[in-house]
Amino acid sequence: MSILVVGSLGLDTIETPFAKVEESLGGSAVYISLSASYFSPIVNLVGVVGEDFPERYIQLLRDHHIDLEGLQVVKDGKTFRWAGKYDYDMNTRETLLTELNVFKDFNPIIPESYRDSKFIVLGNIDPELQMNVLKQLNNPKFIVCDTMNYWIERKNEALRELLKMVDMLVVNDSETRLLANHPNLIHAAKIILKMGPKKLVIKKGEHGALLITNDTIFTAPAYPLENINDPTGAGDSFAGGMIGYLSKVNHLNDEELKKAIIYGSVLASFCVEKFGVDGLLDLNYLKIKDRFNQFFQITHFEE
Amino acid sequence: MSILVVGSLGLDTIETPFAKVEESLGGSAVYISLSASYFSPIVNLVGVVGEDFPERYIQLLRDHHIDLEGLQVVKDGKTFRWAGKYDYDMNTRETLLTELNVFKDFNPIIPESYRDSKFIVLGNIDPELQMNVLKQLNNPKFIVCDTMNYWIERKNEALRELLKMVDMLVVNDSETRLLANHPNLIHAAKIILKMGPKKLVIKKGEHGALLITNDTIFTAPAYPLENINDPTGAGDSFAGGMIGYLSKVNHLNDEELKKAIIYGSVLASFCVEKFGVDGLLDLNYLKIKDRFNQFFQITHFEE
Repeated sequence: MSILVVGSLGLDTIETPFAKVEESLGGSAVYISLSASYFSPIVNLVGVVGEDFPERYIQLLRDHHIDLEGLQVVKDGKTFRWAGKYDYDMNTRETLLTELNVFKDFNPIIPESYRDSKFIVLGNIDPELQMNVLKQLNNPKFIVCDTMNYWIERKNEALRELLKMVDMLVVNDSETRLLANHPNLIHAAKIILKMGPKKLVIKKGEHGALLITNDTIFTAPAYPLENINDPTGAGDSFAGGMIGYLSKVNHLNDEELKKAIIYGSVLASFCVEKFGVDGLLDLNYLKIKDRFNQFFQITHFEE
Repeated sequence: MSILVVGSLGLDTIETPFAKVEESLGGSAVYISLSASYFSPIVNLVGVVGEDFPERYIQLLRDHHIDLEGLQVVKDGKTFRWAGKYDYDMNTRETLLTELNVFKDFNPIIPESYRDSKFIVLGNIDPELQMNVLKQLNNPKFIVCDTMNYWIERKNEALRELLKMVDMLVVNDSETRLLANHPNLIHAAKIILKMGPKKLVIKKGEHGALLITNDTIFTAPAYPLENINDPTGAGDSFAGGMIGYLSKVNHLNDEELKKAIIYGSVLASFCVEKFGVDGLLDLNYLKIKDRFNQFFQITHFEE
């Protein structure tokens, strides 16, 4: 089934204690689409770049059969840029630069050919824009949205309206606590479920992820990696892997949701092993299924 | 099979945003012994208190059939006291007071009747004392030890010697990184395995625990609780539940070890639900097995 991804495309400059890359391909829509591309033949991307966006990155996305009809290229515009720096522990990052450029006036327009997309991922953008996207769709089957502290604090009303329209919210632990205004994660999750989304996924970085619905709690660890090179994009890769798997299943039940969380964790683990999107470029079904099986090994115990 | 627990007994004053308790029963040996008592009929305790140690706490330990022949009561001595304060998020605590008192000169003497104990837990004390305990034992089957930043920094040589004599080290994530002097947890774990212990358990508080051996990695989540009242003693309850289960199994293989980690997590979850040791006082096999089954539910997915 077709997947629609709306979010940012950017040029990232990333510094870690091990290396530095400049103006490499980045942005939430990129990580989500690349991850989802290993599951679905139809990944429709909506985003915006400037004329300076390198042709080789366009080609890279096309090589992963990502549909770019919805990619707006602003004439004389400059692409969104972000620069960040990680310390040894990889858990804290310092943002050195955020240049919104053409992303500042992004108005996602869904091409006619995308409007029947079934699985929707609304990357982290203004909740009003996320709602505008939904209004342009015909009959989506499953809607996932991301958000961040900035929108929780500055566009709370719009976000609350959006949450009534989505099936799943994907946020990190501090965003969960902020949105619910409660320090206990599980209690906060239950408050958020009352706001609208039927499912909540809480991303905890190196500590894995939690799926919480009204009748299920499921915990997934992060894959225990000896070499983490760059955590950038891990959360978006998680969302892409998860929606990718969900787009393939026959029945969207709890068992499939749990497996989707693990597939999300698999894609996130491949992402952080290399710099930028590099870890997402040369995957295939066997590599992905093999790591899925390893997740089973490291979590399974006898009843 | 018999369990021997060596560690501290104390009077804890604990403050959280919800309540405050003064001079309640605490100490590593207490949390470990109480947790282990639900699995084994023989729990031998070695520790020290002053004459001010309340008789009702002695009785409480006896009520859980914990053998106190190894409990030294120092005449005119004052019991170890600790006071700490937790903030809303329960992850950071501030130590307000540490009064070692009789614990300062603690010299663990193992009574004759304890020397054949098979499962040994060396609570967090000076590694030289931990080694002295081992020298007094006849033929232990499985030795677990805990330690902390203080000993890693100040008694590194003794600790390294001790590590060659134990089967399992149980530490938290920051202690793991400090001991191995490496920021990546999995890499740090492999460095520590080379120091001697065949098994390493890394406690990550609300993020669960990791078991790492030369050929296995196993992850356990913390039980997702809506009400966490007091995290004091969670790590020691984990160790007690784990050793308790291990003392019951026929073969100490990886599958049993994984289940032991879950039983440890079960006891830790009961501990943090109430203040001090209160969560460990009224348990039974059914309650423990029921939560174990819930751990299976929240971690299990289909292959």
